[in-house]
Amino acid sequence: PFLLSDFLKENPEIDLELDVSNRDNVIRQLENNEVDYALMTRLPEAMSLSSLELMQNNLVLVGGKGSREDFSRNKNAYFKRFPFIFREKGSATRKAMKDYLKLNSYHSEKNITLTSNEAVKQAVISGMGCSIVPLIGIKNELHLGQLEVLSAPGLPIKSSWYMVHLKEKKHSPTAKEFLKHLIDKRDSILSKHFDWVKEFEF
Amino acid sequence: PFLLSDFLKENPEIDLELDVSNRDNVIRQLENNEVDYALMTRLPEAMSLSSLELMQNNLVLVGGKGSREDFSRNKNAYFKRFPFIFREKGSATRKAMKDYLKLNSYHSEKNITLTSNEAVKQAVISGMGCSIVPLIGIKNELHLGQLEVLSAPGLPIKSSWYMVHLKEKKHSPTAKEFLKHLIDKRDSILSKHFDWVKEFEF
Repeated sequence: PFLLSDFLKENPEIDLELDVSNRDNVIRQLENNEVDYALMTRLPEAMSLSSLELMQNNLVLVGGKGSREDFSRNKNAYFKRFPFIFREKGSATRKAMKDYLKLNSYHSEKNITLTSNEAVKQAVISGMGCSIVPLIGIKNELHLGQLEVLSAPGLPIKSSWYMVHLKEKKHSPTAKEFLKHLIDKRDSILSKHFDWVKEFEF
Repeated sequence: PFLLSDFLKENPEIDLELDVSNRDNVIRQLENNEVDYALMTRLPEAMSLSSLELMQNNLVLVGGKGSREDFSRNKNAYFKRFPFIFREKGSATRKAMKDYLKLNSYHSEKNITLTSNEAVKQAVISGMGCSIVPLIGIKNELHLGQLEVLSAPGLPIKSSWYMVHLKEKKHSPTAKEFLKHLIDKRDSILSKHFDWVKEFEF
């Protein structure tokens, strides 16, 4: 939304639809020419896409209140007590988390799967387990001490958000304007709204 | 998640899948016997369901920082400057919001549709418009002053969350235990985690 709000204020006649969905659905919508632009973190290699890099999307391991202390005392005991909470199949964050856990030979004795970052966040806050989530989505919860970032080798998992569109897509004048607006304003929007993430960089 | 976390701690062997979706999808999953339980606010009349009332789900009108002052000065000017942000088709919150606006002859010159409460929240915070959202989902944002509840006749829109299942559903022992746990613990869970909503009751 922060990337859109100035543009909408300057262009009050625009009707906007923004669909928040997982990676698999986004790819399908691109293929079916249903959307002007899509935001994604890992670009599908099989498609012919134009892309604009918007910002870093660091994935961090988080636990609830008090977890940093528990975790630093004994990681294995921590993971035993707080199972991993996954997003649903088709989510890019789920895939990144599975890859990370496999690489580090971590495993969980039980499976918890929740559809949406918001549900994962609430589950971690309520003490149900730990998870790997996008840092930009947990600003308030970190500042309020409801979530704590846990530091371990290989973390954070670094990727970027890209705004993409099909190379052959015929954009409306408005959609073209929006791309231009983003290219012009990207840096100022990011420094205004996302400077806080530097606090949590490693 | 708060309704589940104690139960999972007492029953560490359980695998959980929780799907967060809009009303239309939830009804489809119930019909197809794909889920043990569903949470919903308005019960579909055409289905034979057993239901347990869990908690109030008040929908409140919210704007960004400073909106309470703007709104109380001049509602019409406020609605002109801050268009309504809707959830996608199939969402119960969207339906309640549409009904409310129609009843009060409010209308918006532009349409903004966002899929997920989280996206709506971020959009309102970023100054894109106002929306009607579940009070229980915006605790942090209210306490941090990023969102403000706007008071107007007919608000909040009162409904309740119900946990439902098909009357003829054959539940596993674990699923039966969970229902029993909720009936026993409902009041203590609610007073522990949701007492703060009283601050914003009218």
